[in-house]
Amino acid sequence: MGGDRGPAAVVAGISRSAAKNPNIGFILHGPEDTLNKLVAKRKPLNGRCEVRHAEGIVTMGEKPSHVMRHGKGTSMWSAIESVRNGEATVCVSCGNTGALMALSMVRLRKVPGVNRPAIACLWPSRNPNGFNVMLDVGADIRADEQDLLQFALMGASYARNGLRLPHPRIGLLNVGTEEHKGRAELKAAHDLIAEAAPANDFDFVGFVEGGDIPSSKVDVIVTDGFTGNVALKTAEGTAKLISDLLKSAFKYSPLSRIAAVLAFTSLQRLSKRIDPRRVNGGVFLGLNGTVVKSHGSADATGVSAAVKLAFQLAQSGFSERLAARVASAQPARQDTPHDEAKSGN
Amino acid sequence: MGGDRGPAAVVAGISRSAAKNPNIGFILHGPEDTLNKLVAKRKPLNGRCEVRHAEGIVTMGEKPSHVMRHGKGTSMWSAIESVRNGEATVCVSCGNTGALMALSMVRLRKVPGVNRPAIACLWPSRNPNGFNVMLDVGADIRADEQDLLQFALMGASYARNGLRLPHPRIGLLNVGTEEHKGRAELKAAHDLIAEAAPANDFDFVGFVEGGDIPSSKVDVIVTDGFTGNVALKTAEGTAKLISDLLKSAFKYSPLSRIAAVLAFTSLQRLSKRIDPRRVNGGVFLGLNGTVVKSHGSADATGVSAAVKLAFQLAQSGFSERLAARVASAQPARQDTPHDEAKSGN
Repeated sequence: MGGDRGPAAVVAGISRSAAKNPNIGFILHGPEDTLNKLVAKRKPLNGRCEVRHAEGIVTMGEKPSHVMRHGKGTSMWSAIESVRNGEATVCVSCGNTGALMALSMVRLRKVPGVNRPAIACLWPSRNPNGFNVMLDVGADIRADEQDLLQFALMGASYARNGLRLPHPRIGLLNVGTEEHKGRAELKAAHDLIAEAAPANDFDFVGFVEGGDIPSSKVDVIVTDGFTGNVALKTAEGTAKLISDLLKSAFKYSPLSRIAAVLAFTSLQRLSKRIDPRRVNGGVFLGLNGTVVKSHGSADATGVSAAVKLAFQLAQSGFSERLAARVASAQPARQDTPHDEAKSGN
Repeated sequence: MGGDRGPAAVVAGISRSAAKNPNIGFILHGPEDTLNKLVAKRKPLNGRCEVRHAEGIVTMGEKPSHVMRHGKGTSMWSAIESVRNGEATVCVSCGNTGALMALSMVRLRKVPGVNRPAIACLWPSRNPNGFNVMLDVGADIRADEQDLLQFALMGASYARNGLRLPHPRIGLLNVGTEEHKGRAELKAAHDLIAEAAPANDFDFVGFVEGGDIPSSKVDVIVTDGFTGNVALKTAEGTAKLISDLLKSAFKYSPLSRIAAVLAFTSLQRLSKRIDPRRVNGGVFLGLNGTVVKSHGSADATGVSAAVKLAFQLAQSGFSERLAARVASAQPARQDTPHDEAKSGN
């Protein structure tokens, strides 16, 4: 209920997902009357969507601390509760990020061994599968070296399960790639992550810079939630600026308007590649249960992308694999999606 | 001598500037033989460029602390020295940023009242003049609330002298625009900057997010050097990724190749608008003398853009105005480029 476009966009999105994926089912949380009407209009949802009545709504402006104390009875609380009691495998929400993280932490609790949960996002990149993983992009505003090590372990696990990369390459975000540069906690984290790499089936490429986030020299970028959030929003703002300038460049003269028509398919191809709706879904890592945060402004395409990501993670048993990985930090590959019985683990 | 492309690119760049601007002169620092040969080939430099022999070169990989101790006799040292002793009005360098900042601090010294100098850059934006100012983008990796206040004062001064904005709007970079969000030093800085705004001829728009950096709701974005550097490099990386994807989209099929030919002028217009070479030049703020850091990889166009910026700042007496502003933080508009005699100050 908490997204910018209200429940209609959410129902349109899950209907799209239902039409594409026969193995998916939904529990929808919010005011019964409103939701039942919206669901009745969508044929693909026929018999595959249960509505769970919840009166309250968490708004975008509410403080997380307030929601933690008074959030019971809201659609957000109810959705997280359905993961907690095992009815749902994953929770997807377009609502208030801070409140969603706060409620998720209180109700699902942190995985043993995790101090700070993190939000991981997919980032358009030059890698063959088209995406890199970055975390934390806003769960918390700080992270010490131990947190950054846990982010590396969780990010590696996410890359295995979300991007199917058996041996991901991890980079630590800094202002230079030389080892003497950066804050003290980054130098300490550099050593901790390098040490943990061999036993945890990932490569550590060392420090990377802002320009390397979309590069093909790394699969997972580790940083604190303040820096990650600024970087993510800066990249989105840059992409939006360029896209707007491109549009006005093509409207400049009659000739450029003709060019725009001819270039339409090429530009569509580009825009599909970097469309933020297609990479929609920040995944909360480090909790007993998977929560996917969709953009507040997500439309049907965006919601459907977040649901697709949630489904993929649910199917791979991601939450359990990640918990096992962080708890043990052993060489055993218990968070790899494929059956590794052959490898002897 | 320290840029990625060596002295040939620098000489080509200053020759371009000399051809365009009859009021500019140069002192070139480095090995006499090499430089004299390069200068002799460029007609516009005839009689307008003095070569100052310096044997040593500061390389890109050298540690700033090492250069501070052993940098005497390098071209970088010599260039800063020429500002120190008043022979040159501004120093422009394509070399090692950390070393340039360290040497500038030691030789030019900080302006009274400034604790940490900052590097300010121009950022393509939706504002009428096409640019916003952001600082610090990498002079230091930390900043407390007092530093951030000084960055606001220095950034406002730079916007007045570099962008000719008499009453710039300042924003403080954070992970959300709500006042309860963010790190403790940001909340403290928020109050300090808000308090200083009325007496210092700038508007304070409060917290801004990464997506607002290129927006028209702000002219100057204040942040610490770690966050600013990551944001800058992330934006450059994003722009590069989109530009490469655009190129490959236009190469996709014979039809899209025809489209590319027709769209050429439109795309040129866009690429000129966001060309990083055109916004080349990080300005060191808070020192007794102006130093402009050009991109290490700058070609002739990039060097010439940095020289143009340096010339404009030199002409406005920027360094003195900024020093006066920071020292007094009084209502008097002593850092406005135009003659304010009429206003009674």
